[in-house]
Amino acid sequence: MPDLRVAVLGVGVMGADHVARLSTRISGARVAVVNDYVTEKAEQIAATIPGCRAVVDPLDAIADPDVDAVVLATPGPTHEKQLLACLEHGKPVLCEKPLTTDVETALGVVRREAELGRRLIQVGFMRRFDHEYAQLKALLDGGELGRALVLHCAHRNPAVPPTFDSAMVVRDSLVHEVDVTRFLFDEEITSIQIIKPAANPGAPQGLADPQIAIMRTASGRHVDVELFVTTGVAYEVRTEVVAEKGSAMIGLDVGLIRKRGDGTWGGQITPGFRERFGQAYDTEFQRWVDAVRSGVNVDGPSAWDGYAAAAVCEAGVESLNSGLPVDVTMVDRASIPGA
Amino acid sequence: MPDLRVAVLGVGVMGADHVARLSTRISGARVAVVNDYVTEKAEQIAATIPGCRAVVDPLDAIADPDVDAVVLATPGPTHEKQLLACLEHGKPVLCEKPLTTDVETALGVVRREAELGRRLIQVGFMRRFDHEYAQLKALLDGGELGRALVLHCAHRNPAVPPTFDSAMVVRDSLVHEVDVTRFLFDEEITSIQIIKPAANPGAPQGLADPQIAIMRTASGRHVDVELFVTTGVAYEVRTEVVAEKGSAMIGLDVGLIRKRGDGTWGGQITPGFRERFGQAYDTEFQRWVDAVRSGVNVDGPSAWDGYAAAAVCEAGVESLNSGLPVDVTMVDRASIPGA
Amino acid sequence: MPDLRVAVLGVGVMGADHVARLSTRISGARVAVVNDYVTEKAEQIAATIPGCRAVVDPLDAIADPDVDAVVLATPGPTHEKQLLACLEHGKPVLCEKPLTTDVETALGVVRREAELGRRLIQVGFMRRFDHEYAQLKALLDGGELGRALVLHCAHRNPAVPPTFDSAMVVRDSLVHEVDVTRFLFDEEITSIQIIKPAANPGAPQGLADPQIAIMRTASGRHVDVELFVTTGVAYEVRTEVVAEKGSAMIGLDVGLIRKRGDGTWGGQITPGFRERFGQAYDTEFQRWVDAVRSGVNVDGPSAWDGYAAAAVCEAGVESLNSGLPVDVTMVDRASIPGA
Amino acid sequence: MPDLRVAVLGVGVMGADHVARLSTRISGARVAVVNDYVTEKAEQIAATIPGCRAVVDPLDAIADPDVDAVVLATPGPTHEKQLLACLEHGKPVLCEKPLTTDVETALGVVRREAELGRRLIQVGFMRRFDHEYAQLKALLDGGELGRALVLHCAHRNPAVPPTFDSAMVVRDSLVHEVDVTRFLFDEEITSIQIIKPAANPGAPQGLADPQIAIMRTASGRHVDVELFVTTGVAYEVRTEVVAEKGSAMIGLDVGLIRKRGDGTWGGQITPGFRERFGQAYDTEFQRWVDAVRSGVNVDGPSAWDGYAAAAVCEAGVESLNSGLPVDVTMVDRASIPGA
Repeated sequence: MPDLRVAVLGVGVMGADHVARLSTRISGARVAVVNDYVTEKAEQIAATIPGCRAVVDPLDAIADPDVDAVVLATPGPTHEKQLLACLEHGKPVLCEKPLTTDVETALGVVRREAELGRRLIQVGFMRRFDHEYAQLKALLDGGELGRALVLHCAHRNPAVPPTFDSAMVVRDSLVHEVDVTRFLFDEEITSIQIIKPAANPGAPQGLADPQIAIMRTASGRHVDVELFVTTGVAYEVRTEVVAEKGSAMIGLDVGLIRKRGDGTWGGQITPGFRERFGQAYDTEFQRWVDAVRSGVNVDGPSAWDGYAAAAVCEAGVESLNSGLPVDVTMVDRASIPGA
Repeated sequence: MPDLRVAVLGVGVMGADHVARLSTRISGARVAVVNDYVTEKAEQIAATIPGCRAVVDPLDAIADPDVDAVVLATPGPTHEKQLLACLEHGKPVLCEKPLTTDVETALGVVRREAELGRRLIQVGFMRRFDHEYAQLKALLDGGELGRALVLHCAHRNPAVPPTFDSAMVVRDSLVHEVDVTRFLFDEEITSIQIIKPAANPGAPQGLADPQIAIMRTASGRHVDVELFVTTGVAYEVRTEVVAEKGSAMIGLDVGLIRKRGDGTWGGQITPGFRERFGQAYDTEFQRWVDAVRSGVNVDGPSAWDGYAAAAVCEAGVESLNSGLPVDVTMVDRASIPGA
Repeated sequence: MPDLRVAVLGVGVMGADHVARLSTRISGARVAVVNDYVTEKAEQIAATIPGCRAVVDPLDAIADPDVDAVVLATPGPTHEKQLLACLEHGKPVLCEKPLTTDVETALGVVRREAELGRRLIQVGFMRRFDHEYAQLKALLDGGELGRALVLHCAHRNPAVPPTFDSAMVVRDSLVHEVDVTRFLFDEEITSIQIIKPAANPGAPQGLADPQIAIMRTASGRHVDVELFVTTGVAYEVRTEVVAEKGSAMIGLDVGLIRKRGDGTWGGQITPGFRERFGQAYDTEFQRWVDAVRSGVNVDGPSAWDGYAAAAVCEAGVESLNSGLPVDVTMVDRASIPGA
Repeated sequence: MPDLRVAVLGVGVMGADHVARLSTRISGARVAVVNDYVTEKAEQIAATIPGCRAVVDPLDAIADPDVDAVVLATPGPTHEKQLLACLEHGKPVLCEKPLTTDVETALGVVRREAELGRRLIQVGFMRRFDHEYAQLKALLDGGELGRALVLHCAHRNPAVPPTFDSAMVVRDSLVHEVDVTRFLFDEEITSIQIIKPAANPGAPQGLADPQIAIMRTASGRHVDVELFVTTGVAYEVRTEVVAEKGSAMIGLDVGLIRKRGDGTWGGQITPGFRERFGQAYDTEFQRWVDAVRSGVNVDGPSAWDGYAAAAVCEAGVESLNSGLPVDVTMVDRASIPGA
């Protein structure tokens, strides 16, 4: 079977990573087309990949007959138009989060795909492909711990760019925990409250950091998330499920234990998301390539998952401003056959 | 110097433990008098301790000239009268929590001791004497981690007696985390909210379990506490402080690591509070005995600490009913010179 | 650049794994030819891989003009002849350990490759590609811990096939620790002693298990290895380096922490070598494919490493019989220019 | 019951610790007499303890009618004479290790006590009272792990005084692991070999450090011990038992977990033996005081245990010089009725 010919749209840090991933570590695919609004960058990258060319207009890239499937690593505001083009041309697409930048357009994408009658869109919530989350999910599904009752999460970054604002903590960081919650609990989130404690003195002026998110699911389960993006320490992601018959935790990484002359012991904390989730991205892409080649097209989070995350984050941003719990508004999934 | 002659009032499970502690492990003290409203039990225990006698009326025991100091392990509703008697007779007293059963009477005890002009009352928040909490406090005070910002706590019991109700989760379990918060952060708690997620199917009918407490301190720091008293697993108490320059956690006990043929590895979780905090009780009592013998009388949580805990728990119970955040009402400490 | 066309010789459990690896997870390579002395098995597998055919004679497969590189997963006794054929045809080869089954023939292979003047042979000591060993090596090379002094290893299997004998513990299990020692310490092992303690009652009659290997390196460093292949527990590989300024340990895997109602806590021990070292195999193969395509041919343990391991294991088997320390006999590497 | 009147002989660092222990933390005992060959030091300490006096001659202290029991913290060479005096006067004695400084005199003490027909001597192997060793022993005795097969120990000190020589590593450090082996395995050690790897560049000239001890027990079980007394890191004592149905390890202390801005995580390693084993000493003394007051006199390692440790260490020192395995020579315990 010939290699899948992929167009990668957007070759910033994340997109360039995906080009390298598809070219050197993923079996059965090759990058046929790259595109970026900085055309020089696209051309530069195309030149390093045998058989790859740069295309100026992303919609041309999607329509290109030499392109079998699309990876979207473009800025969020362009996603809606590009996703609709993929649907129109029947091209499977792996779309980095967010699906789109607001709930309304996300729902529009869900509806359009549902009308098509077949799945083409996968959203890049890569944690579902991380082996620790997969183990945790399997443990819960296996029933050994009984019904899951409470979820505690911590999402910590050492630092963020100066342009990072309080709403981005919700939209870019919390969104992962939103998907993790939905993945682990298999149900929707119905309300959310963002608490803003006294800020870290080291956080940029105006950035509410840390933030605490309190969420409730359809069956009344509680989720709390510590979001802290200026810890100065390291990238840390920790998840603990408390269930009826026990609890389980991931993210207390103890790889290499080291003892030193200053009387301390311990290991290295994973310094960044690439180190922590590199394996997850590789697995996500290999499974997506395999799914597309086999005709299934999607093997992971769907457009609905992208829509649901958007709905929760929108309520989260509202709570960030009001300080009060906000109910999450979503259409009834059953009202969209095929979603 | 002669041994301190102690009266132990109340010789139920906890009081009998304290009698044994003072008789066999604490240096410089002996149990001179025991009392219980079940007089036979007091007499039985007195018979096993050389030089100890049973006294029928707790107030007689307090007034007894052969008694230098008092340990209160009686039911909470009797504390107010017994504490006031201790103050009247100038007897140092180590009072098991709660100080009294409501905020008003707790404040009355604080005021009366303040009028005396010297400290006589120590409240039995024994976690402050646990070596892990002491290490954590020292770490925070040492400044290495910068300003503490967030506190995550988990308080889990395998099971509770059938009479345990939702308010007791607040008054008997959360009260410890209230004191830990005040101990670690050196400031008062100003508001509290109790969240009731979908209950554990295994919890007794009518018991809201788990509960999540969300607290805020005077300077705006966030505290969350998972309270889960029917885990079926073990006694687990975990505390994590997230600070400006790092974080620290206690309670992930890794004493004895064991690997087994079922392919699992791990250790034994501390099965009960005696195993977990036995050392803390011993240290608490030895330091209290030493403080009383040296004339200092108190070396630990004071009557004010008991009052403050009562005020937070009262607000907690109100929130348990309303589901809403409740402000904690406390008098200004500066208005009571000597408190 | 066209995909590397690989011949996989031997498609038993391990070889079939390699076929799957090259076909589905490794970028830039495809399996062009498979061979097995059970010809039906080779044909069966060839039928599932597009563009792959079965070849009856392994030497024909090596000589095949449609084959760019060779993977040897055949039984050890056939390695010598197959490796020499690869050298003769100038085909890069990734040879599963052992290089050959005795020291004399291993040295012959080393000499022949050295005469060629270019590296073609890589030996499959895959632990060097495991991220934990790589981290440990980097830590040592970084100098933070000073000079490494002592190495403690444990190599535990839950069970072995009934045909497993005492010498196989040395040749098949210890051989990995021999390579790890040489990898971490960058020097040769000069003596070895195998101690046979009282055997595990659960071990098959006649199998000396556990065994303890005591090794000494050229500069006098001490290595001890616990070899225990009937633990009934799980696959466990642990390595601790004790150095001048600290120590470091890998293999105490703490991925998913789970607490249960029986009062224990812990995680799942990796049940088998595929789970533990699957990533290492993938990395080994991807790097080997990349090295061959770039013309470097070898990016890992060389023929000399295979020879050195054979020399140590031969001495180990001698010590297994005598119970005494045995000096390792090796030719001087400098006497073979190009080795 | 009146407090036990104890004479503490030798008030150097360890003896002064024991005086403090008996005076402030142990219930049911008081220090009646202290003695030291530096008479001023004894007088100084006696002055701080109510009802305590200094006695110049240790034998007078033992004979003193106001002394019920004796603690020996004097230098090893004086132990024989002092122990025999204790036996002569029928005084229970807690003797810091070593029992005596050579095997012959140790055996003489064992015989003399056996002739008396009652136990009076307890040897200060305090690890048996450490809660982790006690847990490990209980785990083995409980049978869950089946028969113990192999014991791995590590004994690391950050530094030693300049007078510390290679034989002291055996006599003062290894001796604890000798007792731990005999305690956990309930059998004698029959041979020992000391391996001297290339020395730590940071170790004092002439000190063989690290050393590796290889021991074998009567039933053929294997024990290895890493002895490393100039690690520069911390006091670390780790013990792992590998048994038929699993393994268990103590000494990987994870009390307080801390994460920091330099990207590391971990805790504080116990900095010294007082922190590590302080609880063990307290428990040892409390149980000894209780045993003496109840007339049992000994509740811990006996004179025979001291003799056996001496015999193993003597063989160890011989192996240190020869580099060869040395058989341990001991009399048959059954030949000394009452031993």
